[in-house]
Amino acid sequence: MACLKVHGSVVSTAALRVITCLNEKDLEFEFVPINMGAGEHKKEPFISLNPFGQVPAFEDGDLKLFESRAITKYIAYEYAGKGTQLIYPDPKKMAILGVWMEVEAHQFDPAASKLIFELVVKPLMLGLTSDGAVVEEYEGKLAKVLDVYEARLAESKYLGGDCFTLADLHHLSTINYLMGTQAKKLFESRPHVSAWCADILARPAWTKALAMQKKP
Amino acid sequence: MACLKVHGSVVSTAALRVITCLNEKDLEFEFVPINMGAGEHKKEPFISLNPFGQVPAFEDGDLKLFESRAITKYIAYEYAGKGTQLIYPDPKKMAILGVWMEVEAHQFDPAASKLIFELVVKPLMLGLTSDGAVVEEYEGKLAKVLDVYEARLAESKYLGGDCFTLADLHHLSTINYLMGTQAKKLFESRPHVSAWCADILARPAWTKALAMQKKP
Repeated sequence: MACLKVHGSVVSTAALRVITCLNEKDLEFEFVPINMGAGEHKKEPFISLNPFGQVPAFEDGDLKLFESRAITKYIAYEYAGKGTQLIYPDPKKMAILGVWMEVEAHQFDPAASKLIFELVVKPLMLGLTSDGAVVEEYEGKLAKVLDVYEARLAESKYLGGDCFTLADLHHLSTINYLMGTQAKKLFESRPHVSAWCADILARPAWTKALAMQKKP
Repeated sequence: MACLKVHGSVVSTAALRVITCLNEKDLEFEFVPINMGAGEHKKEPFISLNPFGQVPAFEDGDLKLFESRAITKYIAYEYAGKGTQLIYPDPKKMAILGVWMEVEAHQFDPAASKLIFELVVKPLMLGLTSDGAVVEEYEGKLAKVLDVYEARLAESKYLGGDCFTLADLHHLSTINYLMGTQAKKLFESRPHVSAWCADILARPAWTKALAMQKKP
């Protein structure tokens, strides 16, 4: 399985998404670090893997992919028989799972990513001050999304259905960053959301991905 | 096939995406108009179909879906044997197609939708003035995306591969709006992008979807 390669940075939410997926599938892979501080993601050879200059990129033999959610979907289908089943074979269950994957991408992630930029990247990585008005605006947006999640998770153990799937997995790296910020209260104040976060953040595949941040 | 229902508005890019997909698959459906001007998408009964209060919502018998790209993927898989084949059976070809579907969602659409809001919705629907600085910023973002498309379309007839697929279809409604604005120049100045736009905008499934805007 040394033919699987992830090119990225362990601080990237998108790279961590792909790494967690590979861990859930018990797949070994080579991690190729991209030094984003030095702008390696905007230069060759990386931009031949992703012309948009964003991590991660992925290789499975001669197949080269980018966009984290396209990579996780490929892995989930191609290695369906390995590790955790992250998709449903039943087409109608899969359609519902598909809805919640799109919800993560179009409702949750835009608000979550903006808050990570304001509350993590600006103060801790760029030495800048968070913009309080932007934080307030996007906390309001995220709260509305989490109200829908609270109702969904009152009826369904996981977002996509009865089992942990890609729809949950796609949230892990963003939720983990937000749990280290004031936005934590938005998750903790909603009982079903809070229980769901505790459950998915405790998954060994996620713990193993996060541990890569602590390696020298 | 009267069991297929689309709840939406014919001015919505997302609703037109689903309608075009159904047309490509030669599927009959019932269109249930949602009066967005009257806020029907934010009230019951619509929000029981989509708790985020956004059109479209879709029904196939007892299956209820929302998020336009989740709906088109369901239709493409579930009705694979009907009309135009919009996905690839081959997993590696499908993975590449998946990358370009994510590119549409995460690179193209955010810039395109912002420009549609500034150049179409504000002046024509809300009676407001476009913000020139925002237009300039997002035209710059869209231009960078279209530079990547130009290189991709120089090598591949369609974005997802040799055939017209969901990766192309998902762009139709947004491109069509932008072609009526000053942003048209961004498409016309790139020969491969321009030829691709002319090709996909001429598809009968799209023409038929657009004709619904002209019905009383």
